[in-house]
Amino acid sequence: MGEFELIRRYFKRPQNAARIGVGDDCAIFSPSPDREVCITSDLLVQDHHFLPDVSPQSLGHKALAVNLSDLAAMGAQPVGFLLSLGLPHTKEAWLEAFAKGMFALAEQHNCSLVGGDTTACPVTLINITAWGEVKKGGGILRSGAKVGNDIWVSGTVGDAALALACRKGQIHVPLQEAKACFTRMDYPTPRVDLGLALAPFINSMIDLSDGLAGDLPHILKASDCSAQIELTALPLCPALAQLNFAQRTRLAVCGGDDYELLFTAPATERPQIQQIAKQLAIPLSLVGRILPKLGAEPKLEWLENGQGSTFNFHGFQHFPEP
Amino acid sequence: MGEFELIRRYFKRPQNAARIGVGDDCAIFSPSPDREVCITSDLLVQDHHFLPDVSPQSLGHKALAVNLSDLAAMGAQPVGFLLSLGLPHTKEAWLEAFAKGMFALAEQHNCSLVGGDTTACPVTLINITAWGEVKKGGGILRSGAKVGNDIWVSGTVGDAALALACRKGQIHVPLQEAKACFTRMDYPTPRVDLGLALAPFINSMIDLSDGLAGDLPHILKASDCSAQIELTALPLCPALAQLNFAQRTRLAVCGGDDYELLFTAPATERPQIQQIAKQLAIPLSLVGRILPKLGAEPKLEWLENGQGSTFNFHGFQHFPEP
Repeated sequence: MGEFELIRRYFKRPQNAARIGVGDDCAIFSPSPDREVCITSDLLVQDHHFLPDVSPQSLGHKALAVNLSDLAAMGAQPVGFLLSLGLPHTKEAWLEAFAKGMFALAEQHNCSLVGGDTTACPVTLINITAWGEVKKGGGILRSGAKVGNDIWVSGTVGDAALALACRKGQIHVPLQEAKACFTRMDYPTPRVDLGLALAPFINSMIDLSDGLAGDLPHILKASDCSAQIELTALPLCPALAQLNFAQRTRLAVCGGDDYELLFTAPATERPQIQQIAKQLAIPLSLVGRILPKLGAEPKLEWLENGQGSTFNFHGFQHFPEP
Repeated sequence: MGEFELIRRYFKRPQNAARIGVGDDCAIFSPSPDREVCITSDLLVQDHHFLPDVSPQSLGHKALAVNLSDLAAMGAQPVGFLLSLGLPHTKEAWLEAFAKGMFALAEQHNCSLVGGDTTACPVTLINITAWGEVKKGGGILRSGAKVGNDIWVSGTVGDAALALACRKGQIHVPLQEAKACFTRMDYPTPRVDLGLALAPFINSMIDLSDGLAGDLPHILKASDCSAQIELTALPLCPALAQLNFAQRTRLAVCGGDDYELLFTAPATERPQIQQIAKQLAIPLSLVGRILPKLGAEPKLEWLENGQGSTFNFHGFQHFPEP
């Protein structure tokens, strides 16, 4: 099967994101009036981001989900995407399942594939570039956090890390409870509707792809402030909640791949935010507060029932960059 | 060197393509008033598109050039791009040379890097997504060719194929003459200014990445017509012109990677087109004509001094797709 036949058979679908879609030198689109374009790109490489025996349907879902999650973190409405696919073989069953997972999520968000590239490659790799729209000036940046802001987290955190630890045999939890975590790891939900609903009320936002301890520092650096997080307030799923404090806290703080939203907002917006949580049936948890930066570098302080925690994250570096 | 330090050191430059660039979940941009966005993505993988010992400076240039060439083929003005980079190692000298080649070309076209992704990978791979702008409705599509249109080719064709054949030791030409072809292969020139200048006068356009015999059929299929090409009219560089007819014609017709523009226009536009050739000092050659499609499939007819050519392209398939 040649490149063009592969594209025609698996990746050419009706689309409404672009005036010109798959099949020309470029796709052509216009943003809606008074809107700006948000654009993001994520590269997933076999053995680094997924194992060779991963379900191709889950992989198709996840490759798009991580991009939609970046759009969600700007408060953007997804519109379209480009897919670059490197494949060591062109097995039809694999391609069919991959396309199924990807398009199921794309259709949920009315986000269309409009172009891309395919090539042979010794390992499987997927690069998706997705774009969406925000009101002009309405995108929620990492740099907008204000001193005194509440810090919120959506859903539960540490689920994907727990699933990975279970799959590796490092932690044992009852199968029924672990199952939900496996779904969270294999089919993460980009919080698109939540990002859109929150945008008018919040100051800064990021999606949790590298975990709370990895991602919150991006907001602190960009916004030039410090923060404290109350470890006992972190929202945990039932499987995680039954582990001991050290185990569950480590997974919740350092575990990545949950694709929940972390955002900051003035305390005056609490009723609005709780209202959105209720309407969308997504738990939103108040987990900390933005503080003034006192020293040269932002500081991230961990509390345990309001007291400085002595919890040791085994040398996890919050600010590994110079 | 971590991912963020790598990005900061080699890929964070002042940019004017986006209101928000590298360092947030997404980049944010708006097209200029009355403009549409053209977007394209190309994936280059080691051993498939380049050898492991390729000059990283040439690779940086080429990875961006192939995308700018797609924009040129729409008649678009480049604006910005996203870079996804997979690397087996992070050697500083390699990254520096790669960035140098890429940014030199980017600056020529005032096209800024605004985001992307980097990751470890067993082979080197580069995915660039670039976008540009055209006047609303002004993009030049593959589907616009009209019966009676002239078929034009810019520059010379077969140069990169000749360079590759020389490098493989399959063909020997004097070093001085081969040198120009090596530059054409390693540092292809995306015909951006030419695409912009031609756009108001032409009906369809494509860039020659897969060669004349590979790319013209895309126009014929999209425009639902046939064509004839006069083989003796193909523009050849001095090194290619001195080969025998069979050798030079095969390289000029089937050789890819020249990134010249192939376009079709009404005969009434010949003076305009010749004027543009003169102004930009880029040779533009009239090489054929668009014909009505008589059978079920488009037909591509090769002429030699006006007569049907018996030239055998060794089974090269013009329409390999069903």
